[in-house]
Amino acid sequence: MAHRAVPRLKLKLRTDMVSYHPPKHFEKKIPAGDDRTRLVCNQCEWVHYENPKIIVGLVPIYKDKILLCNRAIDPRQGYWTIPAGFMELKETAEAGAKREAWEEARVQVEINALLGVYSIPRAGQVHLIYRAIMDKPEFAAGPESHDVRLFAWEEIPWDNLAFLSNHWALNHYYESREWDSFAPFGVPSEDVEEVAGHST
Amino acid sequence: MAHRAVPRLKLKLRTDMVSYHPPKHFEKKIPAGDDRTRLVCNQCEWVHYENPKIIVGLVPIYKDKILLCNRAIDPRQGYWTIPAGFMELKETAEAGAKREAWEEARVQVEINALLGVYSIPRAGQVHLIYRAIMDKPEFAAGPESHDVRLFAWEEIPWDNLAFLSNHWALNHYYESREWDSFAPFGVPSEDVEEVAGHST
Repeated sequence: MAHRAVPRLKLKLRTDMVSYHPPKHFEKKIPAGDDRTRLVCNQCEWVHYENPKIIVGLVPIYKDKILLCNRAIDPRQGYWTIPAGFMELKETAEAGAKREAWEEARVQVEINALLGVYSIPRAGQVHLIYRAIMDKPEFAAGPESHDVRLFAWEEIPWDNLAFLSNHWALNHYYESREWDSFAPFGVPSEDVEEVAGHST
Repeated sequence: MAHRAVPRLKLKLRTDMVSYHPPKHFEKKIPAGDDRTRLVCNQCEWVHYENPKIIVGLVPIYKDKILLCNRAIDPRQGYWTIPAGFMELKETAEAGAKREAWEEARVQVEINALLGVYSIPRAGQVHLIYRAIMDKPEFAAGPESHDVRLFAWEEIPWDNLAFLSNHWALNHYYESREWDSFAPFGVPSEDVEEVAGHST
């Protein structure tokens, strides 16, 4: 069902993090009327407001199985993940999650619950992760995936998941798999400290 | 209980929207390895990735009353709103909502539910709005508010609310006021078209 594709690198994951690699002519200062340090271009005084970004994704379910993607791009190339990525402008969160599922796993789904709202201050991200149903076992590796496969719960490659947030989403899916309507899960209490964004 | 404060203008709401007022030396083009048009500085090739921003806010409840703020800043100066604003780096969504409640209404609350997850593609925003309990009727106008007041449901100034999203949050609060745990509401179906972000 799945096939390999030539990975197509995207700059998004790396150049996006301007805090870590801003151009040399950006300096940190407090703009007039503001109360926080921001990155400001010292050539044109343009203020780069950097706010948390939204990651949208979903857990695609076919019968009792879960669809995972093997990443063809860094970070965590070769590891397994649910389809997820940066939400873009001009889309809703649900549309973004479905777009990512199509881009990474060539799968079409129906969203039926918001599974998790995970704040990750360390990464400047909030993840909105949905539960979604596949009505047919049709999927294929998109350009950012080496492989895409359906896994029974007992087959999930726990030691080779790409991100801590994959563990949360999969376990929260499993815990709520027979619930119709429920409050979304947050970051598990044991991981809150791990993902905290302590002021520097 | 509430008092007036001298408004302190913040640039955040306006200069943040770089799409509408980018510096002249930013041009729209597709960066190498990407598949979307982005704003790129033609002097240093730095890519300004612009993704949706998160608005965090809450409906503060004291007994059966709801705390609203009269805005001292544009947009919608003089209109009433729940405390809400841009989520910042290094905080969780809940911490951001509580920070906004403190900044705008000098109120301390306990969050007890995620009330709404509202995607507003037209504005490039996702709103995460919580339900929160005040254990004392203590509050005051922060620098961005002219006034802060508790309103009974029948007293809510519907014709003078600042934003459409205030209507959603207040009605969703009222509908779920006796529920302990529930799936957050989304944009009401009758308003989805109004806030859609059609590609240009």
